[in-house]
Amino acid sequence: MNPVSLEKRTAELRGNEPPLSVADFEAAIRAVGPERYHDLHPFHHMLHGGKLNKGQVQAWALNRYCYQAAVPRKDAALISRVHDRELRREWLHRVHDHDGQLPDETGGIERWLVLTDGLGLDREYVISRRGALAATVFAVEAYVTFVREQPLTVAVASSLTELFAPKIHKERISGMLEGYDFIDDKVMAYFKRRLTQAPRDADFALQYVLKNAKTREEQEACVDAVRFKCNVLWVQQDALYNAYVAGNIPPGAFRPEV
Amino acid sequence: MNPVSLEKRTAELRGNEPPLSVADFEAAIRAVGPERYHDLHPFHHMLHGGKLNKGQVQAWALNRYCYQAAVPRKDAALISRVHDRELRREWLHRVHDHDGQLPDETGGIERWLVLTDGLGLDREYVISRRGALAATVFAVEAYVTFVREQPLTVAVASSLTELFAPKIHKERISGMLEGYDFIDDKVMAYFKRRLTQAPRDADFALQYVLKNAKTREEQEACVDAVRFKCNVLWVQQDALYNAYVAGNIPPGAFRPEV
Repeated sequence: MNPVSLEKRTAELRGNEPPLSVADFEAAIRAVGPERYHDLHPFHHMLHGGKLNKGQVQAWALNRYCYQAAVPRKDAALISRVHDRELRREWLHRVHDHDGQLPDETGGIERWLVLTDGLGLDREYVISRRGALAATVFAVEAYVTFVREQPLTVAVASSLTELFAPKIHKERISGMLEGYDFIDDKVMAYFKRRLTQAPRDADFALQYVLKNAKTREEQEACVDAVRFKCNVLWVQQDALYNAYVAGNIPPGAFRPEV
Repeated sequence: MNPVSLEKRTAELRGNEPPLSVADFEAAIRAVGPERYHDLHPFHHMLHGGKLNKGQVQAWALNRYCYQAAVPRKDAALISRVHDRELRREWLHRVHDHDGQLPDETGGIERWLVLTDGLGLDREYVISRRGALAATVFAVEAYVTFVREQPLTVAVASSLTELFAPKIHKERISGMLEGYDFIDDKVMAYFKRRLTQAPRDADFALQYVLKNAKTREEQEACVDAVRFKCNVLWVQQDALYNAYVAGNIPPGAFRPEV
């Protein structure tokens, strides 16, 4: 049987199947990482392995800024749909994590801008997103839209790539500090903070999804949401690779100084 | 002065500038094509020049289906915002062009599926979009969202890449008929029909935009809308090139049979 008809038959069967056990459901979610998480992408291996030049690291940081900047809007979109006050209170700290809390916390986006400052990028230019790859912007906005439009449990599930994040952050911190003389401890502050933030968030979201996705169809939609989110991350790596490693920089996008 | 600060200064000056003359505004819109339209992309040169193998042409048709399938939703999103009955009536034929009109017109999407049938792709698989590149889906959905959210004149302006389309369609028809033994007249019906549809649509939309964008800021937003739309098209070419020419097929995407 060819893969297309196999996939089709699997999809047809799904509707009639009983729900997965909680353990199998969790395993299905966790299995997405080794298949699709962006630590598998060649651009990431180059980034962590010290194989990029400064212009390529600038392009990465400039584009990844778009993702960071979208996260609190994504989280606010989720909160805007929640009637359960406890869930809103729990989710709100994600906005704090990125935007900081008055009076004196600056938050993750500011830490990201410390990184782009350190790379010699103009802060106003980074924030404007004028030089970002269109593919990056489309991908991150697709994430915001997904969270705004999908069923709430599925929207929560799309955050579960955080289950796979600590490993990549650890690799990134050590790899980048070692591999690049233009990277120091100060500019890696974003990732250090995420080492404690991401596991806490992922654990809460995972428990929520395991409890609230009850039918097989809801469970499959949640696993698909993790795949979707991996695609959001993968597309960004593909676009960076194509533009700044293969050298096909699209019209209007950031061009590193030679 | 480096390009960043030049661009920044231009943006600052814009707010204070008088509107462009109608002729200059039209020229600014038309100037986007030679800078950014996807006929400049290497993947298009390969497609038209008969340089792709059948699997690569399948990948193109499968992904481009997502774009075709989004167009009537995009047009309905626009119509849903229009209070002027005459504009709604005028815009409605775009939905007919793609979806066909009862009782017996089948429309452009059906003609596209004749093309994918002709290439040996399973119709249900194409329609499901399961094998499409995530970058394709993100780009075309960004177009639907843009038209739903931007000011109406700017949303209309995003259709103006149709000004540049007839040339590429002509090249495509002759190039593909000549270059591929698996392409015949019947499967190119979509593009033949667009040769008459696109210029009519583009002319109407252009006149609408020239009349309704009154301030310099509105004019610039319309020119930017054409750039945005070129990005929607360019991202699709980049993703096809990276996946099916450079060979970096993302997890889950269509894999041609060898």
